[in-house]
Amino acid sequence: MDLSFFSDKITAALSQQRYGQAPEALYEPIRYIMALGGKRIRPLLTLLGAHLFTDDLDAILKPALGTEVFHNFTLLHDDIMDQAPLRRGQPTVHEKWNANVAILSGDVMLVRAYELFLDVRPELLPVVLRKFSQTAAEVCEGQQWDMNFETNEQVSIAQYLDMIRLKTAVLLGFCLELGALLAGATAVDADHLRQFGTDIGIAFQLRDDLLDVYGDAATFGKRVGGDIVSDKKTFLLLTAQAQATEAQRATLAQYIGQPVVDAATKVQAVRAVYDELNIRSQTEALINDYFQDALQHLDRTQAPAERKEPLRRVALQLMERES
Amino acid sequence: MDLSFFSDKITAALSQQRYGQAPEALYEPIRYIMALGGKRIRPLLTLLGAHLFTDDLDAILKPALGTEVFHNFTLLHDDIMDQAPLRRGQPTVHEKWNANVAILSGDVMLVRAYELFLDVRPELLPVVLRKFSQTAAEVCEGQQWDMNFETNEQVSIAQYLDMIRLKTAVLLGFCLELGALLAGATAVDADHLRQFGTDIGIAFQLRDDLLDVYGDAATFGKRVGGDIVSDKKTFLLLTAQAQATEAQRATLAQYIGQPVVDAATKVQAVRAVYDELNIRSQTEALINDYFQDALQHLDRTQAPAERKEPLRRVALQLMERES
Repeated sequence: MDLSFFSDKITAALSQQRYGQAPEALYEPIRYIMALGGKRIRPLLTLLGAHLFTDDLDAILKPALGTEVFHNFTLLHDDIMDQAPLRRGQPTVHEKWNANVAILSGDVMLVRAYELFLDVRPELLPVVLRKFSQTAAEVCEGQQWDMNFETNEQVSIAQYLDMIRLKTAVLLGFCLELGALLAGATAVDADHLRQFGTDIGIAFQLRDDLLDVYGDAATFGKRVGGDIVSDKKTFLLLTAQAQATEAQRATLAQYIGQPVVDAATKVQAVRAVYDELNIRSQTEALINDYFQDALQHLDRTQAPAERKEPLRRVALQLMERES
Repeated sequence: MDLSFFSDKITAALSQQRYGQAPEALYEPIRYIMALGGKRIRPLLTLLGAHLFTDDLDAILKPALGTEVFHNFTLLHDDIMDQAPLRRGQPTVHEKWNANVAILSGDVMLVRAYELFLDVRPELLPVVLRKFSQTAAEVCEGQQWDMNFETNEQVSIAQYLDMIRLKTAVLLGFCLELGALLAGATAVDADHLRQFGTDIGIAFQLRDDLLDVYGDAATFGKRVGGDIVSDKKTFLLLTAQAQATEAQRATLAQYIGQPVVDAATKVQAVRAVYDELNIRSQTEALINDYFQDALQHLDRTQAPAERKEPLRRVALQLMERES
């Protein structure tokens, strides 16, 4: 089945979703950020998780939107914390309005996300909300670790992978598990799908790290090398630091954590060390590891092979994306 | 039954409550703000609402704590927005840590509040969470109106009363309704109790406005006249502005919204206008109106008279409080 079949359902449902009327300053920012677009990956994964087991997707739509509202809530609050000026090329909410409006609108978005889960079958409500709440807390934990890492001297590769698992991957895992559970999947199958989603999520974030350094400026949509310029402790940098010779370590130390004189020179110098250490192929290998692990979990899920195809296609798109 | 019977249950349950371990920067602020104390009015009202209909309060405790965690979440985020340096005489979370930590810890607190409601009987879960979510959104709406009013030229008394209803009163109403519903009350009785709580909440906030101007500095705990100094549009000020003669209006205009030269002089001058207009007794009369209305709703609730006594006592304490 074509992916647009699922995307169209999501687009239609989102366009009908209401968040509240007054005061305007509370609800207008919600409509604004939700209208900025994005790939709507989370509700898509929720529907595709359900599609493995059912054709009745209408009952899945509202909770699927709940995952998108929750995701946008995290973007809204993260943008305040990161002092980000732009989101999808448009002013962030705290820039367009102010930080107070962004805090409070975000709070209501989290409440609205919960409300979107309340229509699931009553017997499933406790388990769905328990899993959602755990996921939501983990996403916050991931964001806090990410902020901690900015000032931590030492961050291990294991700590980094755990951070991106919490901040990004567990929510994708939850979306798939949610869709499966709502469609009547067994606990075993729902768990396989959760792990499929988590693996894809980690691979997705590693792909992001890779694109920042090796992406095509024309298609990437962000400035290539931004992570290097801002000294972000990505998988690439941490791996390079762990494997560097004394000379390479000195080169890295000359640029990382130092005032930036010339951004282009810094990016070039750090990327040269990455190239010497084959960081690109090491990262690609790890991405592929997670991807293969994800596919194994999908294979083990008890559902018709042809129903797995859309999910496999989305996973592949996420792995091979250039932006 | 003695109120300490209920308070002790709450204190014991709060001391056993766990919010999370790592990262420390996410969970330590939650333990910090929850340990600052306070009157624990919301869980107390929840237990007292349940006590009207049942002796089995243990099943009510976790959701009762949920109301307290939610309330403290709103304090945490409101303190960022208000740039408040102190909360209950101690540094606020954004002062002790920073605004980012306060935003994110608050977000997790809202998630934990929801989790505390999940143990209610499954058939009650949808209605409890729907009512809680509506209340939570209304509290945010109240906070946004409150912030809007700071810069609005014209605020009517009706708008002000609606703001304090949303910001403060609906949560007290929800607590009582929650306790009643969990204890098996009819929808009619639960609704009476919700209205009892909402009325008490509005009266409680009006009492706060009154104490700011006419409280005893020794017992009030805050600087008397703080609202006047900061030009806060309270019931007292809005009523005075609505009823002022031309001369009184000129006096108010001389001080309100102008740079403060001498705070004591400003407080004295504004209070003199209040005194001339009998604002104190007008406010007391309105508080009493809400209080009497609240008691009528309590009277109409179908429960043994002696079980209503603790609730009546708490309501009276809230009305007559000096701090």
